[in-house]
Amino acid sequence: MTELDPVKVMKQEVGRAAAARVKSGSIVGLGTGSTTAFAIQFLGDRLKSGELKDVKGVPTSFQASVLAKKYGIPLVTLDDIDGIDIAIDGADEVDPQKNLIKGGGAAHTREKIVDSLAKEFIVVVDSSKMVDRLGSTFALPIEVLPLAITPVTRAIEKLGGKPELRLGIKKDGPVITDQGNMVLDVTFAAIDHPAELEKTLNNIPGVLENGLFIGLADLILIGEIIDGKPSVREF
Amino acid sequence: MTELDPVKVMKQEVGRAAAARVKSGSIVGLGTGSTTAFAIQFLGDRLKSGELKDVKGVPTSFQASVLAKKYGIPLVTLDDIDGIDIAIDGADEVDPQKNLIKGGGAAHTREKIVDSLAKEFIVVVDSSKMVDRLGSTFALPIEVLPLAITPVTRAIEKLGGKPELRLGIKKDGPVITDQGNMVLDVTFAAIDHPAELEKTLNNIPGVLENGLFIGLADLILIGEIIDGKPSVREF
Repeated sequence: MTELDPVKVMKQEVGRAAAARVKSGSIVGLGTGSTTAFAIQFLGDRLKSGELKDVKGVPTSFQASVLAKKYGIPLVTLDDIDGIDIAIDGADEVDPQKNLIKGGGAAHTREKIVDSLAKEFIVVVDSSKMVDRLGSTFALPIEVLPLAITPVTRAIEKLGGKPELRLGIKKDGPVITDQGNMVLDVTFAAIDHPAELEKTLNNIPGVLENGLFIGLADLILIGEIIDGKPSVREF
Repeated sequence: MTELDPVKVMKQEVGRAAAARVKSGSIVGLGTGSTTAFAIQFLGDRLKSGELKDVKGVPTSFQASVLAKKYGIPLVTLDDIDGIDIAIDGADEVDPQKNLIKGGGAAHTREKIVDSLAKEFIVVVDSSKMVDRLGSTFALPIEVLPLAITPVTRAIEKLGGKPELRLGIKKDGPVITDQGNMVLDVTFAAIDHPAELEKTLNNIPGVLENGLFIGLADLILIGEIIDGKPSVREF
């Protein structure tokens, strides 16, 4: 382990800790992002070794589907199931009330659908994502129908936000989501009432979903590097 | 001009040279990319000054639409017009026969529709894009329907290509095009017969369009920096 990137090792450990909490017979929400990717990998390992049986995954993105197939986790859709037992997903910010900002990977709409259906929602992050107040380090992502981008931009400005259309890299023009929509990254001077803001934003016609995840997370697994060694803290 | 980035100044000069070739009363195909963006800007300037009259633009991407609106170029769709007089667009590679590889910006499908309809198609590039042989520096972009990504990948491998799914930055998982599709960047050991390859690839079910633009370009405007000064060469 001496030659490995400590941040990568830390993400692996957090992913492993999350995968270890899945029980046989579970329907598992599979999140998106680099830490969650390790959870999917370790979940597949546990299935392959026979330690786990009869687990099915519900992917939150094209990326999650590809990883689940790669690591041998059978997939189901929301139409096939009555509920989700446990969801594992990352976050861009986590506050002391376990409220989250997500959407840096432009997958938060499908993530919120899946994560909100889970009986237990486990968030896997590194310690840099912990904040005292949501919005202090990360702009709030909002997925918007392309035809509504101008009126939605104006409506958000009226609410005091500064929206910026997320531009692609390796793609000219805007980032397009897996659903074919666009993302506004919105900076607010302060997010004082996140639960209210979540509803207000989602009520703007043309908004699919914003990245505020309020009251959804049950457990946060935080990866840290202490004295050069990766460790996982529960919160 | 002393403080300006010479590459940016060069792109501006090429864009200006292209915009200067547009005549009053023209329908203009508006390409995508950083050099073309300057052509759109200068076209708008000429309209604003009254030097040009009655020009309408046909955008090749969301980016081109936004720029055209910003610089005051009225837009029309392909349904509104009988033909396109002149198209201005960039390229990722240009060979000695004026054949192109495009698609680095994931906009080549709409670009090929528009550029191929133009009576005159002007390509704006910097000299780094000139190659002896297509595919020597740039992988060939192919836009693919998401549901067909696996069979199309296999079909391309059978043709001797090495396809790689283009991954997003600031978006987890794949880049999604303005049309909601994905892009495979395909490396070939050698592209000996580009006209044939263009047709073969487009004939794979699930492929929308590949980035080979064969026999379409009429004039290449090449930006160069000679003795620290930007200049534009015609080819």
